Amino acid sequence: MNFCSHCGAPVRFAIPSDDDRPRYLCDNCGTIHYQNPRIVAGSLPILGDRVLLCRRAIVPREGCWTLPAGFMENGETTPEAAIRETREEACAEIELGGLYTMVDLPHINQVYMIYLARLRDDVAPAFSAGPESLEVRLFREEDIPWSELAFSTITKTLECYFRDRARLEREARDVQTLDLYSLHSDVIRRW
Amino acid sequence: MNFCSHCGAPVRFAIPSDDDRPRYLCDNCGTIHYQNPRIVAGSLPILGDRVLLCRRAIVPREGCWTLPAGFMENGETTPEAAIRETREEACAEIELGGLYTMVDLPHINQVYMIYLARLRDDVAPAFSAGPESLEVRLFREEDIPWSELAFSTITKTLECYFRDRARLEREARDVQTLDLYSLHSDVIRRW
Repeated sequence: MNFCSHCGAPVRFAIPSDDDRPRYLCDNCGTIHYQNPRIVAGSLPILGDRVLLCRRAIVPREGCWTLPAGFMENGETTPEAAIRETREEACAEIELGGLYTMVDLPHINQVYMIYLARLRDDVAPAFSAGPESLEVRLFREEDIPWSELAFSTITKTLECYFRDRARLEREARDVQTLDLYSLHSDVIRRW
Repeated sequence: MNFCSHCGAPVRFAIPSDDDRPRYLCDNCGTIHYQNPRIVAGSLPILGDRVLLCRRAIVPREGCWTLPAGFMENGETTPEAAIRETREEACAEIELGGLYTMVDLPHINQVYMIYLARLRDDVAPAFSAGPESLEVRLFREEDIPWSELAFSTITKTLECYFRDRARLEREARDVQTLDLYSLHSDVIRRW
């Protein structure tokens, strides 16, 4: 940030009086420009014993596999953002379960929020590659391309899911009931 | 937003090619200025059968009661933001439990994330009013000033807590074990 977005004058980076951290300050119009973390909302779409992954057509991590997710927009809710991103990246319709993983990434000022979801297979085609994806596919646990996943948040979410599913299976509970999966929170301080 | 924060030229508000919603665009340097929702992080500090509330010394809702909460900063995690806000507004030290309420407020581009917490009473004084609070007090359920709460997100969080606590009590479980309280997600479209 070099200029005040309100009046166009140059800004300086300094600690305002009555504050404890530096902000971009405009001495001309007095505006303090706060900068805050952004939410990345997405889904883990499930169909039977398979999960949906998208191969990224864009940087960063072009060619690697990810869950459909992206920056939440003003004016929408977190669940709406997860549904929209899934539609955009995988051309897929989902029914959302609850918030499943929430991962803080303080070094890049992001908070990932991934929802469990059921992939709807009553709409045709059930999925296809959106403009930001090279390919969209369903994977069984044993076929997940662990070494080609795009982000640690995605690895974390898939690990949680397969571990929870295995536990539910051992407990002879219905692994398809999304309500049985509860929130995992974590912090990742590097990619 | 009137001017480009990168180069200082005037911006216009229009839909970029390959996008579907209007953004602030700089025709001079080509920057697209995205705007995204902000996270309000806070805590519900509990001590025995009482909860801690702060009476606001600042607008909006000056004089009304709230939970300690505020905008998450770049470089911190959501739990760190909740702890910091509790320290700033109530001069209180807490031990965090899990994320307890997550409320989308799409009309004002905010997402509230409130953590259950245990108020530490082994530090003296246990709490006092920070610069943004007129007063900080512990309330039993029957004394909560419901009609003087500052925000619907706070009302929602307290309602969830007392309802969950009553249920745990009926089930003869330990109401002090924060792990027994699970996440509530909601959307509020107006104050």
